[in-house]
Amino acid sequence: MSTPRLGCVPGPAEKATEQDRRDLIVAVARELAEVEGWAGVSTRRLAERAEIDVGDLYRHFADLEALLAAVAVCAFADLAADLAEAHAEAASSPEGAWPAVASAYLDFAYTNPEVYDAMLALTPDLALGVDGVPAAPRAVFAELRAALAPLAEGRDPDTLAEVGWSLLHGVVMLTRGGRLRPEGQEEREALIAQRLLRWP
Amino acid sequence: MSTPRLGCVPGPAEKATEQDRRDLIVAVARELAEVEGWAGVSTRRLAERAEIDVGDLYRHFADLEALLAAVAVCAFADLAADLAEAHAEAASSPEGAWPAVASAYLDFAYTNPEVYDAMLALTPDLALGVDGVPAAPRAVFAELRAALAPLAEGRDPDTLAEVGWSLLHGVVMLTRGGRLRPEGQEEREALIAQRLLRWP
Repeated sequence: MSTPRLGCVPGPAEKATEQDRRDLIVAVARELAEVEGWAGVSTRRLAERAEIDVGDLYRHFADLEALLAAVAVCAFADLAADLAEAHAEAASSPEGAWPAVASAYLDFAYTNPEVYDAMLALTPDLALGVDGVPAAPRAVFAELRAALAPLAEGRDPDTLAEVGWSLLHGVVMLTRGGRLRPEGQEEREALIAQRLLRWP
Repeated sequence: MSTPRLGCVPGPAEKATEQDRRDLIVAVARELAEVEGWAGVSTRRLAERAEIDVGDLYRHFADLEALLAAVAVCAFADLAADLAEAHAEAASSPEGAWPAVASAYLDFAYTNPEVYDAMLALTPDLALGVDGVPAAPRAVFAELRAALAPLAEGRDPDTLAEVGWSLLHGVVMLTRGGRLRPEGQEEREALIAQRLLRWP
C-alpha cells in the first residue's frame, strides 16, 4: 500500500510539528518496507526519503526496532478501521458481518505483507500485558469479536474470536508460504467466510 | 525435544556410513536449535557437538540453510508419524480422529518451537511445487485430511483440510506471540477440537 491513512498522515513538511515529523517517518518507513522489505529499511535511506536528518530520526526513535513497532501499531489502527468499515457496509446483509470482515482482513494482509509481518511476526513487544502497546492489536481483536459474536450460539464469544483470528492468520501465513494449493485460495476464503464458523 | 526419531536416528559413530553421518548432523542441529535457537547453531558448535570435522559438515550440507531445510523435512516426517499414531489410537472414539490429531499437532508445535519455525517459517523452499521437497509437508497434510474428511459433510475435503491446518498453525503462532489470552489456551483448543470444524 502506498497511501498512509488515519493518524499516520503527515502534515505539510514546512510547518511540521514534532508529532507530524514522527508520523512522517512512520509513513515513509512503512512505504519503504512494503516496496523493498524490512531488510531494505536503513536509517540512511529513510532519512533521504523523508528528507530529514538522521539525527532527527534518532530523536524520535531509539532504533529501527522501535520504528518497526510504531509502524505495526499504526497498521493495526488502519486494519481495525478497515474491519469497522466492512462491518458497517455489511450492516443489512442477511449473512451478517463476518464474511465482509474476514474478507477485509485477508485483503489487508495480502496487500501489505511486509507491514503484516511487522504487526504479527516481528514485534514481540506487542504481546498482551506489555505496557502501553496492546491497545492497537486489541482494536483489531474487538472488530473480529464484534463480527463473530452473533455466530457464537452458545460458544464463548472471546474464544470464538481468538479462534477466528487464528484461522485468518494461519491461512495468510500458509498461503503466503506456498504450503496450500494456490488454485484453492478462493475456495478456502469462501469456506472461512461462509461455512466454517457458523454453528450449528 | 531431545530424542530424535524415525529416519533421523543416527547409528553408532564408529561404524557410521555417510547416511548415518548426515542423519547425525541433522539430529544434532535439531537438538542444538531447540536448546539455543537457530541463532545459536554455528558450523563450529555443530561440529563440536556431533564430534565431526567442519569439513565433514560441508560435505553433507552446502550451508546452514540447507541443514535447516533437512531438519525441517525430518521434523515433518516425525509430525506426520505423531498424527498417524494419534489417529490410530482414536480409531474407536465416537468423536472421531480430529480431536486427537489436532491435539497431537498442537503438542508437537508447542514442544518444538524452534523446529516448528524451521518447518513453517524459515524454509521457503518447502513450498508446493518446489522440486524434491514437498513430500514432507504433504505427509502432514495427508494426516490432517484423513482426520477431517469424515467431518466434511458436503464441504470439499481438501479445502477443509487446508483450512483446518491454517487454524492449527494460526493458533500456534498467535499463542506463541502472546496475542491471545494465556488463560484461554485450553478453551481455544477444546473449541478447535470439538466444536468448530463439525458441520452443520
